Amino acid sequence: MSNFRHALNTRRDADFSAWYQEVISAADMAEESGVRGCMVIKPWGYGIWERFQRLMDDRIKAAGVQNCYFPIFIPLANFEREASHVDGFAKEMAVVTHHRLISDGKGGLIPDPEAKLEEPLVVRPTSETIIGDAMARWVQSWRDLPLLTNQWANVVRWEMRTRMFLRTSEFLWQEGHTAHENRDQAMEETLRALEMYRASAEEDLALPVITGEKPENERFPGAVGTWSIEAMMQDGKALQAGTSHYLGTNFAKAAGIKYQDRDGAEQFAHTTSWGVSTRLIGGIIMTHGDDDGLRVPPKVAPYQVVILPMLRDQPEDEALLAYCEEMRAGLAAQVALGEPVRVLLDKRPGKAAGKRWDWVRKGAPLIVEVGPRDMEGGKVALLRRDRLWNMDNGKPNFDFTPRDAFVEKAAALLEEIQRGLFDEARKRRDENIVRGVTSMEQVSEFYSSGAKYPGWIEVQWAKPTGAALDAVVEQLKTHKLTIRNVPMDAQPADGNCIFTGEPAVERILIARAY
Amino acid sequence: MSNFRHALNTRRDADFSAWYQEVISAADMAEESGVRGCMVIKPWGYGIWERFQRLMDDRIKAAGVQNCYFPIFIPLANFEREASHVDGFAKEMAVVTHHRLISDGKGGLIPDPEAKLEEPLVVRPTSETIIGDAMARWVQSWRDLPLLTNQWANVVRWEMRTRMFLRTSEFLWQEGHTAHENRDQAMEETLRALEMYRASAEEDLALPVITGEKPENERFPGAVGTWSIEAMMQDGKALQAGTSHYLGTNFAKAAGIKYQDRDGAEQFAHTTSWGVSTRLIGGIIMTHGDDDGLRVPPKVAPYQVVILPMLRDQPEDEALLAYCEEMRAGLAAQVALGEPVRVLLDKRPGKAAGKRWDWVRKGAPLIVEVGPRDMEGGKVALLRRDRLWNMDNGKPNFDFTPRDAFVEKAAALLEEIQRGLFDEARKRRDENIVRGVTSMEQVSEFYSSGAKYPGWIEVQWAKPTGAALDAVVEQLKTHKLTIRNVPMDAQPADGNCIFTGEPAVERILIARAY
Repeated sequence: MSNFRHALNTRRDADFSAWYQEVISAADMAEESGVRGCMVIKPWGYGIWERFQRLMDDRIKAAGVQNCYFPIFIPLANFEREASHVDGFAKEMAVVTHHRLISDGKGGLIPDPEAKLEEPLVVRPTSETIIGDAMARWVQSWRDLPLLTNQWANVVRWEMRTRMFLRTSEFLWQEGHTAHENRDQAMEETLRALEMYRASAEEDLALPVITGEKPENERFPGAVGTWSIEAMMQDGKALQAGTSHYLGTNFAKAAGIKYQDRDGAEQFAHTTSWGVSTRLIGGIIMTHGDDDGLRVPPKVAPYQVVILPMLRDQPEDEALLAYCEEMRAGLAAQVALGEPVRVLLDKRPGKAAGKRWDWVRKGAPLIVEVGPRDMEGGKVALLRRDRLWNMDNGKPNFDFTPRDAFVEKAAALLEEIQRGLFDEARKRRDENIVRGVTSMEQVSEFYSSGAKYPGWIEVQWAKPTGAALDAVVEQLKTHKLTIRNVPMDAQPADGNCIFTGEPAVERILIARAY
Repeated sequence: MSNFRHALNTRRDADFSAWYQEVISAADMAEESGVRGCMVIKPWGYGIWERFQRLMDDRIKAAGVQNCYFPIFIPLANFEREASHVDGFAKEMAVVTHHRLISDGKGGLIPDPEAKLEEPLVVRPTSETIIGDAMARWVQSWRDLPLLTNQWANVVRWEMRTRMFLRTSEFLWQEGHTAHENRDQAMEETLRALEMYRASAEEDLALPVITGEKPENERFPGAVGTWSIEAMMQDGKALQAGTSHYLGTNFAKAAGIKYQDRDGAEQFAHTTSWGVSTRLIGGIIMTHGDDDGLRVPPKVAPYQVVILPMLRDQPEDEALLAYCEEMRAGLAAQVALGEPVRVLLDKRPGKAAGKRWDWVRKGAPLIVEVGPRDMEGGKVALLRRDRLWNMDNGKPNFDFTPRDAFVEKAAALLEEIQRGLFDEARKRRDENIVRGVTSMEQVSEFYSSGAKYPGWIEVQWAKPTGAALDAVVEQLKTHKLTIRNVPMDAQPADGNCIFTGEPAVERILIARAY
């Protein structure tokens, strides 16, 4: 690989964390804002989020869930009602205490002591408690159930160590909140949302994920059960890419979500919540990025095809632009992956080669350069972002192809790239999960072997709880490991717990994680 | 009108304010949240916002503006830099002072004194100052201009008196922020955004508006000039429905947005900002609502056609549902107002007549009831929300029409309703603007005449500034009047200023306003 003049300074295999930051900056996706822990999401990063949002919103609506909008501020009393919930969140919330600023007499501003709130308000870290209040108003009878709501919103968790997209004090997400008559229906919804997340991650973002239940110690604060989708990054670490929670009647009791059941008796509703966030963009980068920048899966690429005419500031440019515009219109009339092809004719001044590398770093799936000679031959120079280099000569892997034939096959190429990115990531993921490990010593050995980017290990356990689970968690922590989840499609247990030696009841994945 | 059994308890002409609240509740659009000044936007209200958002976003993108996302928190220092800006906003901002809660030892929670922020953060009331910081990083050369950004976001202004959609402490909006080389280009963008808002209000929301510049005293804090679109509500009051600001170099100087111009000299950029918000939904209600609830313009109706089968919980229901489903599929394949028809087959239990009034109150443009006899005749019972009553007999104005003919003409009907709502509102608006008023006495008389819902008055003025303008503003205030704007399409001045008697320079609209 060292023969190629890669478009980034940092190699993935040299310093994954520095590489990650460089991709974000080189692809112009986001930057630090200067406000503690908050980032600015720039057009290319936000465009990917918008594409994802549109696709996910369609999935959410198709399930009969309706979008609403709830207040950003949550009174303290809401947190006081659900003790385990506040324990989980109280350490990282932004608290509004005043509603006015005044001059400090020295040219600066201070909160006006006269405008202190009687009850401080919390900037939502998640909305179970405030949506619970609304559900308590909306639900009276079993006829009002299921109640299926979702909101797209910003939330704030005061993180001490932040990393763009992966962990920021403010982030964007959707949070689904539903109420049901009983456990079974709520569990069905919890798993429906989980399956929706799996499908979206795999089909839209080309992120292979493993669905499963989180262990007790990793549950959402206040939940009865938490399920997740876990994706493997190229450094072998796990990224929790979405969660779905069965909340039992915990939040219903705290908020008073009661209904008359079919027999006229009063019952508490069973609720669920589920969410995915801008963190997924970090997952896209760390799964599909390479030493030349990002590779955006076509389904969420703001532009799937970028056309770069070699303009010379000469009268001949006009014919070249017309040639490119015909191609643009032809491409925009094609349908790829269920939608019209998104194509940009990049007419900005500047050399085509310079612009090419901009789009390589941004990861546009197809880049098409057109010079006067290409036009004469009725051709274009096509570059697939997923096959950037000619492995024989170390040069960009241009395919000089007839323009009209390219227009015809563009949709098929985009579908192939989408599938290819997924297959590549799945293969790497599968190759990096070690099975058959039967002792904690083997685990220790694996993670102490000096491998720079070790993957995941599947082991069997007896599902200890309470203090016994705490001991396991502590033991894993010495290797910076965590239990990711209990994969739903794992084989049944057939051995002993690697922690306690008791007969195992299930298999778990352990890994380092973001 | 009193013969009809209207679907609301309150008549518009009896108590407009109570009527407004009743529409919101009867159409199930929003409700108070229990959190001071914040509302919950429910699915029907949020669905209208989503429709609007999609259409506006298309307009924004078509102008080459790119969506980004900026932090919700703004450091105090940003406000300190732009004095007139903070004067305008400092009185109504939510201030975050702590980042953690702890137990108060009595079962409650308090902000942790150990977790006090060194510099308090403001929850954005608008984002000029924080986006200015980003622009200062992004702009170096004239080649980086124009810089055209937009964000869809929530903002918070601590309002003392709130009213749902019209004035809430938290609201949703889009805010466009652009930077340019010079005044002319920035002014062009300011007026482009204004024209975009006019087109969206009139074409998408069927709200006729008057575009014009606000007087000096109504400028956005820190702006050189502010333009608005003003809509007339059914109670004759004005609603400022969108604003566009030319900010000169004020914010560029505060944030340091400098660039090298074409001659190599350093210049400050000229910036603009422009926004519309969920307030527009209040405008839709107060323009198109009637004594039976809301009437949603088809372009932004979450459902444009609602089909209500008369289900009897009998085996015959199946054939009826199949008959309705055929119609639903037929309608969904039609294109109205540029998009596939949005149609709901409402299979909820309950009598069709009860459900009919739900949808009347919500304002679905076309309601189609289907009973077994209609089906036998191949017909449906069609109700147009804009022609709800048979004026002869005071009954709902059903049109018993062949099903397939209805499917064919549904798109044309929706287009007719969209146009009809606009024409009706424009006619009322035009009839309620009084022109030719030449003295303040006539103004006083007009607004003291006892008319319950007086409209607007167009007068001529000499465009006083400073203290002279203050005196005019005070004089108008005694009648609760404000200057709305200087209509761009008004006739040139040809008389004297009604305030000072000097030769007039332009015409202004004065009105009571939300």
